[in-house]
Amino acid sequence: MKPYVIMNAGITLDGKIATVIRDVKISGEEDLKRVHGIREKVDAIMVGIGTVLDDNPRLTVHKIKSKKNPVRVVADSRLRVPDNARILNKDAETIIFTSELAPEDKTEKIRSLGHEVIVTGGKKVDLKKAMEILYEKGLKILLLEGGGNLNFSMLKDKLVDEVSVAIAPVLVGGTSAISLVEGEGFEKVEKGVKLKLRRFYPLGKDFILEYEVTK
Amino acid sequence: MKPYVIMNAGITLDGKIATVIRDVKISGEEDLKRVHGIREKVDAIMVGIGTVLDDNPRLTVHKIKSKKNPVRVVADSRLRVPDNARILNKDAETIIFTSELAPEDKTEKIRSLGHEVIVTGGKKVDLKKAMEILYEKGLKILLLEGGGNLNFSMLKDKLVDEVSVAIAPVLVGGTSAISLVEGEGFEKVEKGVKLKLRRFYPLGKDFILEYEVTK
Repeated sequence: MKPYVIMNAGITLDGKIATVIRDVKISGEEDLKRVHGIREKVDAIMVGIGTVLDDNPRLTVHKIKSKKNPVRVVADSRLRVPDNARILNKDAETIIFTSELAPEDKTEKIRSLGHEVIVTGGKKVDLKKAMEILYEKGLKILLLEGGGNLNFSMLKDKLVDEVSVAIAPVLVGGTSAISLVEGEGFEKVEKGVKLKLRRFYPLGKDFILEYEVTK
Repeated sequence: MKPYVIMNAGITLDGKIATVIRDVKISGEEDLKRVHGIREKVDAIMVGIGTVLDDNPRLTVHKIKSKKNPVRVVADSRLRVPDNARILNKDAETIIFTSELAPEDKTEKIRSLGHEVIVTGGKKVDLKKAMEILYEKGLKILLLEGGGNLNFSMLKDKLVDEVSVAIAPVLVGGTSAISLVEGEGFEKVEKGVKLKLRRFYPLGKDFILEYEVTK
């Protein structure tokens, strides 16, 4: 068993979640409130280590009034998360999945900050196993907030149930910019992850598209 | 003066126009008919040489009944277009913009096939000048069909007036896949090309978004 996984992102019309210099201010204030509304309803929010290193997000519910913060989850195969990352603050519980490549002193350091470190793979985080562990911990709904590489790995392992995007009315281009889904990619379009549109609506200047992943 | 330029593409939800192995079968049959309907109404269709080399498109109106084909335009700085490219067939007139890097014998060869070769830059096609030349030839509406690098150059030179996309319900990922807009990119989101949504509707399995570029 695994949590129900919702992948969400603000993207440019050309599918980017970050520019060539990693500017990530893409969707508008209304969408940020929408995202915090989703965050409030889920049990866990997950990001990859690239997102932690690039954006240093808090991953808490602070754009709207709320009484609880979901558990924060990071996939970090080499345990590169900095000690002072905001994701390791005391605002919420954090679970870091790593691999056997994690340095032992770093593992101890993070545990001493009151957060959990779980090894689920040899050289890379075993995401399927990580999802099982989260489910067993009672985390039934998880919001996946990128980045592009973790999104690809989660999609490839068939762990995503829903995809929603806020398309901002802007084009930024850039071969080295970061797209919604990165990684090695699917070679054929017909081998890609198929979706079914469930809902669409304009929100402020952005446009929301909500899909379910078809099995 | 320049033609009114409409940029159009079928993209995946993650903004790709081609997968890592250059599979480009993205949008559905209804969208292909929509595109051929646009092609029929424009004076010219333009692509970059990368698209010619990867896809070998005909760029004619053949998915719907039509009496005329627009002029085909290619930006090809080093004149790499193969002699047997479908774009050089006799179904329509073709204008190739190139630079002073074009080999003379290749220029002669293409002219002998009945098509036009025009030099507008030293090492790269001067797109602003190319647009002026097309306008002077009476071509008032131009459909820009990619690829990602030409799209970026046209956007950067502020030559695009409208952007429409058909978003296919699929995610393909791939860091080396081709996005709607490639090139060097805009560093800041706020420096990107700003759009205003004009129309949106589902079409078959795809979803159409039509924007105007705001000046």
